[in-house]
Amino acid sequence: MIQGLDDKTKEIYLPVREELGLVGANLKGLSRRRDEHLAPLLAYLFERGGKGIRPAVTLLAARAYSKESATAVIMATAVELLHIATLIHDDTVDNSDTRRGKDTVSSHWDQNVAILLGDYVFAASATFVCDTENIRVIRRFSETIMDLSSGQLLEYFNSYNTGQSRKVYEERIYRKTASLFQTAAESGAILGGAPEDAVEALTSYGRNIGMAFQIVDDILDIDGDVDEVGKPLGNDLLQGVLTLPTIKLMEQRPEDNSIRDIFARKKEKAHLKRSLDLIQESTIIEECYAEAEGYCARALEDIDALPKGPAKRSLQVLASYVTERRR
Amino acid sequence: MIQGLDDKTKEIYLPVREELGLVGANLKGLSRRRDEHLAPLLAYLFERGGKGIRPAVTLLAARAYSKESATAVIMATAVELLHIATLIHDDTVDNSDTRRGKDTVSSHWDQNVAILLGDYVFAASATFVCDTENIRVIRRFSETIMDLSSGQLLEYFNSYNTGQSRKVYEERIYRKTASLFQTAAESGAILGGAPEDAVEALTSYGRNIGMAFQIVDDILDIDGDVDEVGKPLGNDLLQGVLTLPTIKLMEQRPEDNSIRDIFARKKEKAHLKRSLDLIQESTIIEECYAEAEGYCARALEDIDALPKGPAKRSLQVLASYVTERRR
Repeated sequence: MIQGLDDKTKEIYLPVREELGLVGANLKGLSRRRDEHLAPLLAYLFERGGKGIRPAVTLLAARAYSKESATAVIMATAVELLHIATLIHDDTVDNSDTRRGKDTVSSHWDQNVAILLGDYVFAASATFVCDTENIRVIRRFSETIMDLSSGQLLEYFNSYNTGQSRKVYEERIYRKTASLFQTAAESGAILGGAPEDAVEALTSYGRNIGMAFQIVDDILDIDGDVDEVGKPLGNDLLQGVLTLPTIKLMEQRPEDNSIRDIFARKKEKAHLKRSLDLIQESTIIEECYAEAEGYCARALEDIDALPKGPAKRSLQVLASYVTERRR
Repeated sequence: MIQGLDDKTKEIYLPVREELGLVGANLKGLSRRRDEHLAPLLAYLFERGGKGIRPAVTLLAARAYSKESATAVIMATAVELLHIATLIHDDTVDNSDTRRGKDTVSSHWDQNVAILLGDYVFAASATFVCDTENIRVIRRFSETIMDLSSGQLLEYFNSYNTGQSRKVYEERIYRKTASLFQTAAESGAILGGAPEDAVEALTSYGRNIGMAFQIVDDILDIDGDVDEVGKPLGNDLLQGVLTLPTIKLMEQRPEDNSIRDIFARKKEKAHLKRSLDLIQESTIIEECYAEAEGYCARALEDIDALPKGPAKRSLQVLASYVTERRR
């Protein structure tokens, strides 16, 4: 499952390396099902691989309180599957052609296959959650799917709307990204048998790193390395999506119309260049990193009281690592 | 929720009329959520209404063994929501413009809203299942979503394939239709506290009426009343989907090429007329009804040992009613 990790990530994963291997084996197991049509689709998804940050959070949260990790591995598998299912449908909605350097399902097959395969992977993730036999975790999981889809709807209905507030932006990135990080950490804590105050602490930790993670993603769309991002810079603006850097630009340069012009689809490329230049000339990127670092600082406070050990250390390193993803 | 019922259906629903009202109230409750974007979408879905056969099966199966119906109402709500979610994505995949006389979500809004709203309703159905707090029922539910989506994929990958066997057809209609009827009955039985042999009996009953239900749907696509079906006759063939009547035509008239020509998209309308005429001139429609009646007869045997009472009677009437839907 896990591919292209840098040394820092390997260090973070070390305490649960074995368990992450089992998660990968669970995914491979799915694609070995005797269904001539499904097997190749699933194999295609899983060989693409991901960085496995979300399942790692589940496993580390569980490990902080328990050596036993069988149900945490099941949950981490469900978390990764849910993430994959979301990507399949999001890429379809966004008309994205590539993901992690490979064709998306909708471009490799078509949109219909993407819709149905996404549904199948959603369901597969739910069957793994059921295997935890923990009702609390199962309920949080289905509530999370509601957050993810309603967050995407919120983004969709606000696209090309320059009147968006930060509050709407924060609600949107909470639902579409932070909610799954939150559930990843919360469910790990619950299944690891953490005391209730620690479950709350890890839930808040997951939410905070999730918010930081999305803000950094939104920064990289404006300021990233084109090859790494794999999309042209400013792609969000071209899709009519306002993010923190662009909301800040509108706040700080109310007289500038470049974003309004992009959203009005007038000479988009020219106006996009102007928006990006204005952001680069300003302190907006640093301000955005500062906001992301604020979330990471809160995440570190959240887990301050966790029992000392490799799991806690990894969660701490992860919290600082999230904002180190820079150009 | 429930609209346009004939007297026979009203008679079938009588023992659980009140509970079906509560299911409808649960759906309305969902659309009253304070989300400016979601509320109107959900309201649009639920005012469309359906016949409510699947939730009725859940409620009747539970009622056969228990007067208490609180969890059965929750489960019946989940079953109806799952059915609705499936319709949203199926209509998107099939490019259908209307459903129950109203625009489909994808034609009223667009395909992206349909994908995300479908995901949201899938998740909403899962949260209702969680409220039953019955792990066995929750697991069957997520397995059913895998059946539904893999059944649609099976149909998709076999479209325009004239080499399809009856076995593939039966597997396909089991997954895309009968599996939900089966789970509707099984979960009702489990939540109603039925003894294990009765759970098995009702599971088989659900499967059998589900198979009959889909066969009759497939007959009506060839032989139905255009106004009632709401689609031109032979729509399945035009979509490249073989069903029992058309599989039988290819078996009985191997020398006729009309279906191969439709699938080759050559003068479709003319060849479609020829296929439909050949079926009308033959005994195929009656043979198909006979196969559906065979499933219904097995469904009646399945529940023969159920305790006498209004619920059993309704399930018996339903089994015979399925094949009475004729032109």
